[in-house]
Amino acid sequence: MNTLEAINKRRSIRKFTGKALTQQQIETLLRAAMLAPTARNAQEWDFVVVRDRATLDKLMAVHPYAHMLSTADCAIIVCGNTQREHAPGYWPGDCGAATQNILLAATDMGIGSVWLGVYPTQERMDAVGQVIALPAHVKPFNIIALGLPDEKKEEVDRFDPAKVHYEKW
Amino acid sequence: MNTLEAINKRRSIRKFTGKALTQQQIETLLRAAMLAPTARNAQEWDFVVVRDRATLDKLMAVHPYAHMLSTADCAIIVCGNTQREHAPGYWPGDCGAATQNILLAATDMGIGSVWLGVYPTQERMDAVGQVIALPAHVKPFNIIALGLPDEKKEEVDRFDPAKVHYEKW
Repeated sequence: MNTLEAINKRRSIRKFTGKALTQQQIETLLRAAMLAPTARNAQEWDFVVVRDRATLDKLMAVHPYAHMLSTADCAIIVCGNTQREHAPGYWPGDCGAATQNILLAATDMGIGSVWLGVYPTQERMDAVGQVIALPAHVKPFNIIALGLPDEKKEEVDRFDPAKVHYEKW
Repeated sequence: MNTLEAINKRRSIRKFTGKALTQQQIETLLRAAMLAPTARNAQEWDFVVVRDRATLDKLMAVHPYAHMLSTADCAIIVCGNTQREHAPGYWPGDCGAATQNILLAATDMGIGSVWLGVYPTQERMDAVGQVIALPAHVKPFNIIALGLPDEKKEEVDRFDPAKVHYEKW
């Protein structure tokens, strides 16, 4: 799929068939994530791949908007590793870029995805971190629910010229 | 260009020919940015497009690593608008995703780009905000330098299996 087409077609998919992704598909998504840029090329991320149904259910129980994990095949939890950062506080932006690579690669491959926010809500960070046993220096940024899509969404046009400013505000 | 190919080919380009991008190319980049997901669909971003040489020089003067603006045709400053956010603190991750859409769309279109970090370094945020007259509720996230590339970079493989964890940390 063409890049601009994937950017246009990417939508938050919340219903999945429950069918399994292949290990190769998941690795392609992780490779895409690690090709995103990071501040001073610190690559200060880690990725936790959850496919065990009991763990997916636990994540669903501790996150208020994660019901779509009930039909997802897999979740990738994108994390910022503060032991690897070169300057404090750049990891959330960098994790956002890595996430977008995963979402676009997934769209390209016919895989549905949705980004469930975790950082900076401390309560969610603590709860998610506990479910997947994160050490204190590794911060959960989001949960990406993944699976084969069981809903179809049309493209949207979100372009708003009022949000574009020329030369200055 | 295929999505996975653009993800692979995107590199930080720091030398530009100085030739002008078209207004249509810039609008395509901004359209791509606004197609990224945001927390609760707040779309809490704004974009300041700078093409005036005097302003580009001012940005270069206040940012320690922005020398590549000297040959860039254009800069897009991605901003988080805290008056439009639904929950505090999600805008940096959302701006990271919007930035990645710009970088990938640029790669697809043969445009070179590099992400210059601004947030969360307060000194840079204040200085950049002053140059482009941002109000206090609008936070500069980064500066994306853009232009036709005057250097060629090979693809890299950053995949690191040690950063992938299965089921838990």
